[in-house]
Amino acid sequence: MNVDGKNFRTIWPHPHLKSVHIIDQTLLPHRFEVAQIHSVEGMEYAIRTMQVRGAPLIGAAAAYGIALAMAEDKSDAYLSYACETLLASRPTAVNLQWAIKRMQQFLGGIEVERRNFNAWKEAANICNEDVKLNQAIGQHGLELIQNLAAKKKGVLNIQTHCNAGWLATVDWGTALAPVYAAHAAGIPLHVWVDETRPRSQGASLTAWELGQQGIAHTVVSDNAGGRLMQNGQVDMVIVGADRVTGSGDVCNKIGTYLQALAAYDNRIPFYAAVPSPTIDWAISDGLAEIPIEERSGDEVKWIQGRLESGEIARVDVLPQGSVAANPAFDITPSRLVTGIITELGVCQPSQLRKTFKVG
Amino acid sequence: MNVDGKNFRTIWPHPHLKSVHIIDQTLLPHRFEVAQIHSVEGMEYAIRTMQVRGAPLIGAAAAYGIALAMAEDKSDAYLSYACETLLASRPTAVNLQWAIKRMQQFLGGIEVERRNFNAWKEAANICNEDVKLNQAIGQHGLELIQNLAAKKKGVLNIQTHCNAGWLATVDWGTALAPVYAAHAAGIPLHVWVDETRPRSQGASLTAWELGQQGIAHTVVSDNAGGRLMQNGQVDMVIVGADRVTGSGDVCNKIGTYLQALAAYDNRIPFYAAVPSPTIDWAISDGLAEIPIEERSGDEVKWIQGRLESGEIARVDVLPQGSVAANPAFDITPSRLVTGIITELGVCQPSQLRKTFKVG
Repeated sequence: MNVDGKNFRTIWPHPHLKSVHIIDQTLLPHRFEVAQIHSVEGMEYAIRTMQVRGAPLIGAAAAYGIALAMAEDKSDAYLSYACETLLASRPTAVNLQWAIKRMQQFLGGIEVERRNFNAWKEAANICNEDVKLNQAIGQHGLELIQNLAAKKKGVLNIQTHCNAGWLATVDWGTALAPVYAAHAAGIPLHVWVDETRPRSQGASLTAWELGQQGIAHTVVSDNAGGRLMQNGQVDMVIVGADRVTGSGDVCNKIGTYLQALAAYDNRIPFYAAVPSPTIDWAISDGLAEIPIEERSGDEVKWIQGRLESGEIARVDVLPQGSVAANPAFDITPSRLVTGIITELGVCQPSQLRKTFKVG
Repeated sequence: MNVDGKNFRTIWPHPHLKSVHIIDQTLLPHRFEVAQIHSVEGMEYAIRTMQVRGAPLIGAAAAYGIALAMAEDKSDAYLSYACETLLASRPTAVNLQWAIKRMQQFLGGIEVERRNFNAWKEAANICNEDVKLNQAIGQHGLELIQNLAAKKKGVLNIQTHCNAGWLATVDWGTALAPVYAAHAAGIPLHVWVDETRPRSQGASLTAWELGQQGIAHTVVSDNAGGRLMQNGQVDMVIVGADRVTGSGDVCNKIGTYLQALAAYDNRIPFYAAVPSPTIDWAISDGLAEIPIEERSGDEVKWIQGRLESGEIARVDVLPQGSVAANPAFDITPSRLVTGIITELGVCQPSQLRKTFKVG
């Protein structure tokens, strides 16, 4: 997508195939900076500290992390080390496990001397596939938006939580892919952007990328969604996901469950946009089976932004002596989800296995 | 309550009865400063800019605002001017209207030359009554906590949203009065404090006052409540209110509705602690009849805190060009409310009129 009118992906290899470029998302929206990653440890750090984040993107980043490892040492031992290192970086998004498993099986099955080149090729495949999946999600979501727009005069209001835009993927995004498709199709729309505390990915990333594409949007505190819905100001909600169970429970950024409850209570359609690598077919009960990452309370305590001087700084919002807790995800039970938008179309959560012909 | 071990109320008159002291709550938790207000316009400014906030406290502050006016000019015209000025300061909390109406009727019925002294006396009465109402709420809420604590081994977890502690009242608080009573009674408890964006009254005020009284607490993002409840980490929720309808709909700080939905979905008791001046007997349908204050989007955009240097500063968390909206309250329908804790006891929302013998 566009940054100051120039097209970017969120991750791409250097042509010499010894380093990888990423957009350092911890500096947005105040600074757009490309960082260069040279090792598997560097990629693990980038994932853990959320320089790259978003379930599809951390899958792609892990794949390139393994390619970086293979550029250094093609042995079985180093392949295992790279996979284990990356697996431990974040626990919740299943795309990470999915991409690592795919790379490990693929590279494990070919001769050692061919691993370096093929690792880079397979990582590129994962990226290109992600872009295609998201484009398909965009087209299926576009139909939903067109149907709602046909019933409503004026601007359609879409609410989203966290960032499931192109910055969360290789390109296009999951939840925002339908928004970009609808904008391109000329449907008048406006996006309510939940700021998404504690890391403010909505205010920092979603608002920034919508602004860069010229799409009307308004940031609100995460508390506001219920009131907006009570007041008839939301026509649909679309979120992404970090992991979806085979039965359609949606694990996504903390607070998603609250917005889903409000959407359900106000009879507003609530969709999760999910490429198939985000679906964990092995599990059914999201609440019981998905590990929820506990991040540092410092992410609640310290808030980063731009001082009036223009300088980026962080401020402590807690009293001295108080502490914070920071669960990073919650589970939206399938009963609250109107539909899952995948690359194969839109289906009810209960129809997910049938749609993908998974037993 | 205590600040560094010394007892304070949130508002008190200077002995010469020409100015009023308040705690400037916009500087907490980083600085504790007492401000002196000299005029009705000064009090209007203090209420509008939230140097004083919380439904019961803005009622008391408005009463002292009228006393300040009477110290300046005891005429009917100035009394009307003072009441109109204060009425316009904030629209949602009904205590403001209640206190102004009470002062206006009382002072309108006595001779002009006796108005000054009597205005100060009546404002003091309103404050002393508030303290007694809150103490009664504390005792009734204590019984609820004792009952829950008796069924549970270990520490009882109470969640609250925004600040309905002593800082929101003249003393003791509404939602936190039962917490203080339970702590004094030796019941082991821990409070989950929603930070309460955008103005962070939870992180700034509730955490600060709990810390000052030595009560265990943890701040969480507003998004976290649903997850904590899903995970069995919340035993009850107690919030305050800015206005409650005769039918028990609860208007409170934006985001309360989302926490109430989650409590209901997880079968966790959800209480609003409400002194009778917060009840608007004239209305029944909160959603249709309570005006919701729209505050500046700058409260979402700019976040105040303490830099690592110790200096208080504010940072902009939005991309340049993005805007924010800021509805300040929402409505929790009575169907989601387990009980209302008033000075007369705990009742179901539907029993409120009967409890107060109001037709």
